[in-house]
Amino acid sequence: MSRRKLLGASVAAGGAALAAPAVAQEDKATIEWKMVTSWPKNLPGPGVTAQRIANQVEMMSGGLFRIRLFAAGELVPALGVFEAVSGNTAQMAHTASFFWQGKIPASVFFTAIPFGLLPHEHIAWIEQGGGQSLWDELYAPFGLKPVMAGNTGVQMGGWFRKEVNSLADLKGLKIRMPGLGGEVMRRLGATPVGLPPGELFQALQSGVLDATEFLGPWSDRAMGFHKVAKSYYTPGFHEPNGTGEAIFNRVALDGLPEELRIIVLEACRAENARSLAESNWENAGSLKLLREEDGVTIKNYPDDVLNALRENAAIVLGELAEKNSISMRIYESNTAARERLAPWSEIAMRRFMEARDGRG
Amino acid sequence: MSRRKLLGASVAAGGAALAAPAVAQEDKATIEWKMVTSWPKNLPGPGVTAQRIANQVEMMSGGLFRIRLFAAGELVPALGVFEAVSGNTAQMAHTASFFWQGKIPASVFFTAIPFGLLPHEHIAWIEQGGGQSLWDELYAPFGLKPVMAGNTGVQMGGWFRKEVNSLADLKGLKIRMPGLGGEVMRRLGATPVGLPPGELFQALQSGVLDATEFLGPWSDRAMGFHKVAKSYYTPGFHEPNGTGEAIFNRVALDGLPEELRIIVLEACRAENARSLAESNWENAGSLKLLREEDGVTIKNYPDDVLNALRENAAIVLGELAEKNSISMRIYESNTAARERLAPWSEIAMRRFMEARDGRG
Repeated sequence: MSRRKLLGASVAAGGAALAAPAVAQEDKATIEWKMVTSWPKNLPGPGVTAQRIANQVEMMSGGLFRIRLFAAGELVPALGVFEAVSGNTAQMAHTASFFWQGKIPASVFFTAIPFGLLPHEHIAWIEQGGGQSLWDELYAPFGLKPVMAGNTGVQMGGWFRKEVNSLADLKGLKIRMPGLGGEVMRRLGATPVGLPPGELFQALQSGVLDATEFLGPWSDRAMGFHKVAKSYYTPGFHEPNGTGEAIFNRVALDGLPEELRIIVLEACRAENARSLAESNWENAGSLKLLREEDGVTIKNYPDDVLNALRENAAIVLGELAEKNSISMRIYESNTAARERLAPWSEIAMRRFMEARDGRG
Repeated sequence: MSRRKLLGASVAAGGAALAAPAVAQEDKATIEWKMVTSWPKNLPGPGVTAQRIANQVEMMSGGLFRIRLFAAGELVPALGVFEAVSGNTAQMAHTASFFWQGKIPASVFFTAIPFGLLPHEHIAWIEQGGGQSLWDELYAPFGLKPVMAGNTGVQMGGWFRKEVNSLADLKGLKIRMPGLGGEVMRRLGATPVGLPPGELFQALQSGVLDATEFLGPWSDRAMGFHKVAKSYYTPGFHEPNGTGEAIFNRVALDGLPEELRIIVLEACRAENARSLAESNWENAGSLKLLREEDGVTIKNYPDDVLNALRENAAIVLGELAEKNSISMRIYESNTAARERLAPWSEIAMRRFMEARDGRG
């Protein structure tokens, strides 16, 4: 029995004279928000996360706080959500921070950077290492408050029609890899090609692309890349994390009753555990199918390629940091977090994995 | 402004005649629970998590759902919480499932098992791989519903006064390592010694213990072990995960209004992200201090020791599975989850860590 029903019951008990003001009270207390997203409705991973956040908020508030979700293009285009929330066309959005690199170069640090933080490290940086306050500062000029809201996990390094055995094999390679990863590839002689997800399969099949990355085994297998390329490379050096971004209109968020503000923020935080569990489970299952049923071979980028990628990633990130003072402060905070967290991940997790797998 | 205040405001607006029933209604809607815990008040890690869950629930419910927290010994002893919630002396507890091994052998699977699941894998097994329904079934005979509520992360392998260079060094070694890990050590010729946390430092200092494990760098450094032992071993083969357990009295949980039931469950789920971030951040910082300021050396268990530990862990777990049919089903579900998830962790995370660290 919800509090709204309890309220209704007490009204009945109190008699008809109470009904009018009580009902008015119920209406007054109901809050309706719009959430615009950068995803198709219920897209596995982020689309499902966005809908679950809206559902959890409505249930935790006893129906007093309703968030109506709009898929990409329904109210505004996929990449129009930042302006839509800034202008209060919608009160919140579910998207990813790296979409805003064009106007806010440092926004990419809040999704993933090449050779950066793994999911458990990224969440620690944001929650404990000063990442949240820098993210808040970065979006404040736009009247926005960002938080983590879900995670698709570690990405793979991409699908290649031909093996990559040395740096020479990257020369002139036509590869789809957006953002900083693509820029790093360009500096190694590859040719990054920008294509939307819907065109990737055919481009890889026809040879317009020699290689493409997308996400992880769960989404990649659904795209069918394994039907035209049998070499699936690791590691996903370019995006070791997949944090989903919830953006709130600052005035709308601050205007909520405290309990509803905490409810929507806690619903986003719970998704950081729930959706990462779902992504890891599904990626693991799809990886098994790719190897055992689809004839896909998992290959490591060669050492000389990884070393060159790492060296050039450091240069690209250094240039990004130089763009302005907040970019530099975010770069320095993120670097300090990596230097603090990576040795713990190596000693606690990597060495355990080796021992468990009999490599110890 | 909370809904309770809004209610009060509308009552005032409605006039004195409404005040009495409205106030009565307010009292009726308020729910008070007791949460007993196995921890000292605000113990870093689990104690803080338990208090945060209570605080978040009260805030998300606008003060309508209040959970009063009792530290270990305040209402019932640390290990009396299971019976206390089963008998509804308290409506919920915050504890750890491996405390119940004596009465429920398979309960250990819901904290950690030797060479078992890492935190991100354990959460995936519980949320996605059937772990939750088996955990529910295991506790149903006691009228209890368990959920994950926080995580202290991967543990370390322990502090040793003398180096462990081969299997021979374990013969007769007096080590504090509770549960299955201790049993595995016993089969390798070590002598597990059961001591409460408060006695560990002095026992290690005086030589009553040759070695002890406790938790991770955050808690271990606070215990001061580095002052009497300089060799800190990895991996924590015996406990690769540190899930905190919230136990609910089934009748009390089912009796909550739906919105409050979802609020308390979502508060527990959010802690799986929040407290793991805190543990990783603090463990990483304390590890740095132990190495750079305390003169501690991180050592790997030798290969022959790890191989013997892994082989004997498999035997000990097989024996546990044979105890009864639910133990076998949980063992098989957990094993299947490890076989599904471990290759993904190795390909996506371990190889990324190697590449990031220049080992790729």
